[in-house]
Amino acid sequence: MEIADWRRKIDELDEQIVKLLNERASAARAIGRLKQTASLPVYEPNRENTVFEHVQTINAGPLPHEELKHIYERIIDVMRSIQRPPSENRK
Amino acid sequence: MEIADWRRKIDELDEQIVKLLNERASAARAIGRLKQTASLPVYEPNRENTVFEHVQTINAGPLPHEELKHIYERIIDVMRSIQRPPSENRK
Repeated sequence: MEIADWRRKIDELDEQIVKLLNERASAARAIGRLKQTASLPVYEPNRENTVFEHVQTINAGPLPHEELKHIYERIIDVMRSIQRPPSENRK
Repeated sequence: MEIADWRRKIDELDEQIVKLLNERASAARAIGRLKQTASLPVYEPNRENTVFEHVQTINAGPLPHEELKHIYERIIDVMRSIQRPPSENRK
């Protein structure tokens, strides 16, 4: 395979990744609404650690754990930010 | 659905996301090897812009474009780092 073929493969993978990230965002928003109803905090470090442990457990490589964690740190930052109601984002 | 159900859903999504990120990493490594053989640079800003445009085009929400871009900036940073041969990473 040449560079152009691998890039086509990457574009196809990105289509799936973007779809799944959006599904994850919908789930995070649903949790955000449930937390708001129950007056629970958006930031839950224990749950975030569980997510990091989970992705490390299921990681079969070739991505090193540290690099996968870098990506997930950003995913979780973004999910936390869209979980907050708009008024809290302005703070 | 309760918070625990949504979290189970998120864990399932993460299993798929981690798998796809690893497939993307394999493709990036293959490209890295081809670039090395052809003495091409690892950093190609035009290709990176194409990736950002592509993910923006296919993004159907609810993730805002800016937030998706934040995630992809990190994904691309990581992919660039694993594309470099070990000797270059030490620089």
